[in-house]
Amino acid sequence: MPYSAEQAKILTQALPYIQQYAGKTIVIKYGGHAMVDEDLKKSVMGDVVLLRYVGMSPILVHGGGPEITEVMKKVGKEPSFVNGLRVTDSETMEIVEMVLAGKTNKSLVSLINNQGGRAVGLSGKDANLIVAEKSEPGGVDIGYVGQVAKINPGILATLVQEGYIPVISSVAIGPNGESFNMNADHIAGELVGAVGAVKLVMMTDVKGIYDHKDDPSTLRSVLTVSEAQEMIRAGKIDKGMIPKVEACVMALKGGVERAHIIDGSEPHSLLMEVFTDKGIGTMIEAG
Amino acid sequence: MPYSAEQAKILTQALPYIQQYAGKTIVIKYGGHAMVDEDLKKSVMGDVVLLRYVGMSPILVHGGGPEITEVMKKVGKEPSFVNGLRVTDSETMEIVEMVLAGKTNKSLVSLINNQGGRAVGLSGKDANLIVAEKSEPGGVDIGYVGQVAKINPGILATLVQEGYIPVISSVAIGPNGESFNMNADHIAGELVGAVGAVKLVMMTDVKGIYDHKDDPSTLRSVLTVSEAQEMIRAGKIDKGMIPKVEACVMALKGGVERAHIIDGSEPHSLLMEVFTDKGIGTMIEAG
Amino acid sequence: MPYSAEQAKILTQALPYIQQYAGKTIVIKYGGHAMVDEDLKKSVMGDVVLLRYVGMSPILVHGGGPEITEVMKKVGKEPSFVNGLRVTDSETMEIVEMVLAGKTNKSLVSLINNQGGRAVGLSGKDANLIVAEKSEPGGVDIGYVGQVAKINPGILATLVQEGYIPVISSVAIGPNGESFNMNADHIAGELVGAVGAVKLVMMTDVKGIYDHKDDPSTLRSVLTVSEAQEMIRAGKIDKGMIPKVEACVMALKGGVERAHIIDGSEPHSLLMEVFTDKGIGTMIEAG
Amino acid sequence: MPYSAEQAKILTQALPYIQQYAGKTIVIKYGGHAMVDEDLKKSVMGDVVLLRYVGMSPILVHGGGPEITEVMKKVGKEPSFVNGLRVTDSETMEIVEMVLAGKTNKSLVSLINNQGGRAVGLSGKDANLIVAEKSEPGGVDIGYVGQVAKINPGILATLVQEGYIPVISSVAIGPNGESFNMNADHIAGELVGAVGAVKLVMMTDVKGIYDHKDDPSTLRSVLTVSEAQEMIRAGKIDKGMIPKVEACVMALKGGVERAHIIDGSEPHSLLMEVFTDKGIGTMIEAG
Amino acid sequence: MPYSAEQAKILTQALPYIQQYAGKTIVIKYGGHAMVDEDLKKSVMGDVVLLRYVGMSPILVHGGGPEITEVMKKVGKEPSFVNGLRVTDSETMEIVEMVLAGKTNKSLVSLINNQGGRAVGLSGKDANLIVAEKSEPGGVDIGYVGQVAKINPGILATLVQEGYIPVISSVAIGPNGESFNMNADHIAGELVGAVGAVKLVMMTDVKGIYDHKDDPSTLRSVLTVSEAQEMIRAGKIDKGMIPKVEACVMALKGGVERAHIIDGSEPHSLLMEVFTDKGIGTMIEAG
Amino acid sequence: MPYSAEQAKILTQALPYIQQYAGKTIVIKYGGHAMVDEDLKKSVMGDVVLLRYVGMSPILVHGGGPEITEVMKKVGKEPSFVNGLRVTDSETMEIVEMVLAGKTNKSLVSLINNQGGRAVGLSGKDANLIVAEKSEPGGVDIGYVGQVAKINPGILATLVQEGYIPVISSVAIGPNGESFNMNADHIAGELVGAVGAVKLVMMTDVKGIYDHKDDPSTLRSVLTVSEAQEMIRAGKIDKGMIPKVEACVMALKGGVERAHIIDGSEPHSLLMEVFTDKGIGTMIEAG
Repeated sequence: MPYSAEQAKILTQALPYIQQYAGKTIVIKYGGHAMVDEDLKKSVMGDVVLLRYVGMSPILVHGGGPEITEVMKKVGKEPSFVNGLRVTDSETMEIVEMVLAGKTNKSLVSLINNQGGRAVGLSGKDANLIVAEKSEPGGVDIGYVGQVAKINPGILATLVQEGYIPVISSVAIGPNGESFNMNADHIAGELVGAVGAVKLVMMTDVKGIYDHKDDPSTLRSVLTVSEAQEMIRAGKIDKGMIPKVEACVMALKGGVERAHIIDGSEPHSLLMEVFTDKGIGTMIEAG
Repeated sequence: MPYSAEQAKILTQALPYIQQYAGKTIVIKYGGHAMVDEDLKKSVMGDVVLLRYVGMSPILVHGGGPEITEVMKKVGKEPSFVNGLRVTDSETMEIVEMVLAGKTNKSLVSLINNQGGRAVGLSGKDANLIVAEKSEPGGVDIGYVGQVAKINPGILATLVQEGYIPVISSVAIGPNGESFNMNADHIAGELVGAVGAVKLVMMTDVKGIYDHKDDPSTLRSVLTVSEAQEMIRAGKIDKGMIPKVEACVMALKGGVERAHIIDGSEPHSLLMEVFTDKGIGTMIEAG
Repeated sequence: MPYSAEQAKILTQALPYIQQYAGKTIVIKYGGHAMVDEDLKKSVMGDVVLLRYVGMSPILVHGGGPEITEVMKKVGKEPSFVNGLRVTDSETMEIVEMVLAGKTNKSLVSLINNQGGRAVGLSGKDANLIVAEKSEPGGVDIGYVGQVAKINPGILATLVQEGYIPVISSVAIGPNGESFNMNADHIAGELVGAVGAVKLVMMTDVKGIYDHKDDPSTLRSVLTVSEAQEMIRAGKIDKGMIPKVEACVMALKGGVERAHIIDGSEPHSLLMEVFTDKGIGTMIEAG
Repeated sequence: MPYSAEQAKILTQALPYIQQYAGKTIVIKYGGHAMVDEDLKKSVMGDVVLLRYVGMSPILVHGGGPEITEVMKKVGKEPSFVNGLRVTDSETMEIVEMVLAGKTNKSLVSLINNQGGRAVGLSGKDANLIVAEKSEPGGVDIGYVGQVAKINPGILATLVQEGYIPVISSVAIGPNGESFNMNADHIAGELVGAVGAVKLVMMTDVKGIYDHKDDPSTLRSVLTVSEAQEMIRAGKIDKGMIPKVEACVMALKGGVERAHIIDGSEPHSLLMEVFTDKGIGTMIEAG
Repeated sequence: MPYSAEQAKILTQALPYIQQYAGKTIVIKYGGHAMVDEDLKKSVMGDVVLLRYVGMSPILVHGGGPEITEVMKKVGKEPSFVNGLRVTDSETMEIVEMVLAGKTNKSLVSLINNQGGRAVGLSGKDANLIVAEKSEPGGVDIGYVGQVAKINPGILATLVQEGYIPVISSVAIGPNGESFNMNADHIAGELVGAVGAVKLVMMTDVKGIYDHKDDPSTLRSVLTVSEAQEMIRAGKIDKGMIPKVEACVMALKGGVERAHIIDGSEPHSLLMEVFTDKGIGTMIEAG
Repeated sequence: MPYSAEQAKILTQALPYIQQYAGKTIVIKYGGHAMVDEDLKKSVMGDVVLLRYVGMSPILVHGGGPEITEVMKKVGKEPSFVNGLRVTDSETMEIVEMVLAGKTNKSLVSLINNQGGRAVGLSGKDANLIVAEKSEPGGVDIGYVGQVAKINPGILATLVQEGYIPVISSVAIGPNGESFNMNADHIAGELVGAVGAVKLVMMTDVKGIYDHKDDPSTLRSVLTVSEAQEMIRAGKIDKGMIPKVEACVMALKGGVERAHIIDGSEPHSLLMEVFTDKGIGTMIEAG
């Protein structure tokens, strides 16, 4: 069979998935290693453009940890963390917002548009998309760190309807118009219900959830919510993975049937998740 | 690279073509061998469904030569032809219409719908889609054989807009409501301009136009209109292929940049034409 | 009073009925003698066009018994019936479909369009309009004979909205895309609820339901559902009329207030039913 | 043939006219005797409702001479005329407006609505529908008598689109918001072009234009514009008929093919004009 | 601060009120002294135009007592009242309708249109907007005096949607198409619920409700429904004010939170009510 | 006259301007001192919200010179300028983009949203709004400094249509997706034609154009294009003002009748310009 015939056959194998998700919204949390390697970044954004062109409505959410730290160091500010959360004084918040909304966000927008998509970058301030309230985890004041108080998804509906791909940075607007630093995983999880998405894909640096921390050979393909919560309680899940698992749980409450944690550093892992039956990574489902 | 990664990569290679044809109409003349082999028929209809799901608007036109002859024989009627055109008395016309609109058409509709598409079968009578005038080739009266007098494409716009795939049989309505037997190739060629299609694909039984009749090794990949017309004059093109070439010429006049004659008996040849740069078969272009 | 003044006055008498049905859908089962007499056929289709132009939305359903038998005989196939239902092997089904969807349907479409209407012919396969499941009356397998499993009325809404008159032949699509021979009366009855029609008119060969079989002088103008069902049980209703009565009962369940059985062989009986208070034939009402 | 069958047949004879005017706008100038006889008035309004229900868009224009004079007399004011035009001082204008917009207009609206139509009464002031400039025929100042300076047909499009029947009284708004008394015939003639009507019907008290004044037996069925203008010059046309003929000429310039002067006192003359080939009264055509 | 800077600042102070009422409907009962002084009338209509331009949807309701009496006297008819209600025989009704729909209404329309608004005058007969039933207060037949039986607000939605300002006179249509003289205050009160208004403003001749009749220094700024009803029972409210208070109570039942009685003779009192926190006049609220 | 009556009167004086600009687009270049003083910034954004609420469609364009320099200094980078243009190497471009799109833009969005508007911040990269080509003024390569190659205004139409206020930072997308530093004045000038705006307002730090540099008492209220160009040639206009004047000239070519340079540091100067006849600052007009 000549090459192009093989290609054509593979295209036809994508049809059931294209049909299944036609006109449906998919929330993709984009982060980790895939976000700092320029080639991977371009490739993932190309995959997002493909999803849009075959009829799905992807919405991208991103944070940007390493880039923030890098800029803070440039201006001579030492990052500090409490329980994995960045202590965010007013000066730090300014840097966080500049990096997320001005640098990371626009570079993703640019990569999508340059590959034929039409992205519009938003922060949670635009159109009051994400309204925050101050978060004091464990009663400790760590500054402008917030949690989602309200989502106003109108602007997303407007953009998606017109064929745009929204790219959302994890900054929110507070009750007095101030900026809040948000956990991007949580925003992705909350958005699912607000926009009526049918799928949540959390892109990260590891293959998924392992039964034994750090041992990829013990990857769990499927996990119920209660199993996941038990693993968190038992300390079997990495700190960094916990908000991803929490986002999946929020998404399941928000109406999706399955949420996915996949390895963004594997080329086209997003497409593999969407266009195959067995998918990749760890799927979290109700139960 | 695992299999699904390879698949994903191939999907991304389709993206430029998906972008190019997004929201565009493609007229496909479906005929020949691919139409009598049940597996091929199902496979071609699957390809049509795929085109729709990735954002294109396919319109299918079909004739049905062999099936008509078969039914005529069953009722004890001997087919007769003048210059390759079926002599169509009133009784023959009735059979032609029953077979095309009642059998061939509905079986294509059924194969599309069963694979997740939403097809609506039409004859040229429905909504006065194709109005015919009597054709007397060489001054000979061969009965209810017509040529296109007018296309009323409104019903196609309505159906395409709502996501349906129109499947059109080559029967037209005469000035007094009578039925006319039409050349399906010509209908396809005429439709291109009427619906503003960007591509015409003629599916047939051979690989394309050969420099030397019957010698596939002399396949011409590209042919200008004047070259094609010269080959017809020189008798270098098969009788059966002539209306296909004529349809391509009509389509070029109707506004498409390129028209294609491809081998419908090759699996997924339709996708290979749409989703690769070099395409397959013979492309006819202005000049 | 001069003739045209009389005409004008009669027009004004139609006003209350035109007002009553403005924008409303009426399902008309067309069959029997009126369907084989060419003049009557043309006249009935003219009446349907009139209904559309005065603001109603007629939907036509037809079967085609005699024509099927005629073609079967031509190809040397002997029709056989079990309890009035045609035994439909695969070859018979092919003939049924060709005749209904390719001949009867298109001839009605043609007569409507030729009188200024805009008809679109459909079989139950188009847009998956009528999905069938196999029917084994009395546990006997009589082949491709089905009953309605599901109606997908979307295509009817699309067509009616754009001013088209749908003409539906009594063939349905099975779970695997196969064709099923359906009772047209039952399809008409089921459609009423699916499309939200306000009236069902069953056109047949007799004046309505008689108290004494075969005695037109005992015509019942009005019949409640329970009276009708009692008459069926008592064997007072002709076999051929039973599905018509059943269709009326389905329609009453589907939401119409009254269903009508009228004599299609009487010129303009359809208009007489719609445009007069006392109507003609037998009206079946709840109770 | 039973009565209702005859009725049904007559209905079908109206079909070609219904088709011809479907969705088209018809301007009707209503006046004369038919406007003071309550039974006739009700009957004409019923005819207008019928036109709407069979798919046409009637727009009614009315004046109201006799009623104005009657009210003037009640308040002890003596009407005076110059060349057939009412001298309209400010007090008279107030009465004119009260009678036309408050009495005549609302009684027509009421008769339409009571027979199932949905009329909305307008004066030329509403939505600035008719803007007037002062008219000084023969250089004589006769007060608030105006001619059409501009038509703003937006409100008519809005109402017609929603199924309402506009009823317009012949009062216009001047440059400073003052009221102007207008010739209703002229308003009807001007409206034709502004709303893209296809027919103008002037209802009056006589059968049409006569070759010999006052001799109905010399009724002209057809008249060209130049013949009509010649008859005016020759003094063969009644003063009161002249503005009606002028309105017809304006309408022909505004795009209609034929304009009609008919006898409103003949029952259903409006329907006879619309629904028969030969029509009634006098038709004025280009030439 | 130069004058225009001061002006600009005052504009910004209106912003919260503009935001609050953006896209909202406000019913304004216009009457009393403000309606007979030409300068005040023009000024109030200018205020209405402003409300429309800053994004609100005003609907005006008016009566016209003094003008009716004036015209009655002109035609030598003596007005008579029973319990403050005009005895309305058929001749009186004709005058009432002419004055309200033909004179008062059109003069308001004219003043709005001349200041850049787009008003359309309606009586309750137009589009069957206000359907009346006969009212016999205290069992006494006082002729064509009615109360609201039904509101058909469709025409208001159509006009408001297109940017028009409806101006409604207090005449309604009876079951047989006859005219009824209505209390304009009550119509305003009933309209609030039918159109989903958020505010009712009753413009009258006094500053509001006084604790001591005729003593403006005892003006009540706020009154609950029960307080207002108690004051009526105690005879502390003027006859003329009672229907205004009743209209406010209807409006509160119809869904507004607050209804207002203000002094229309004070320049721009309407704007003062809409654009300030404390408002003017008396506010009636639930309780 | 009590205070609120005076306020109400001033509101009515704004009406003609509100009418004039209803539904019209106004491009506002926001910059200079008004952009660093937090109170002024809030006040200007409040004025923008007001314009939106009274029916206009403001579009805001901003740069952010001082803030960029400040951040550059923080990271230890020395700004350098060639002919007033910032030399923009890749590292500088990163800072420019972070500050403009991540800090300045979002702070304006926040101030608008906090005062009841609904702003959406965009950079020229979003939806490919502003496509740049490299600019080498005087043949000198100063890095990522661009000029407008193309405007894609689709996203602005989408947002304005839905009631959002677009806030645009002066960063554009290059042919390969790279970022370009743009002159915000020029972007504002170019946008006018692309979006069909009717007014351009350039907010700056001085009162307008002076006949004698630095002498506010020689303010020119009106300047023709040719006068302005002559003044530039004669060196009478400040370097910083030149792009503002150029933007006005572009806007006049793009279709506005008048462009304005006003002093943004004067409170409510924007409203004074829009809502008064004489305006403030310097108006540039064709000629």
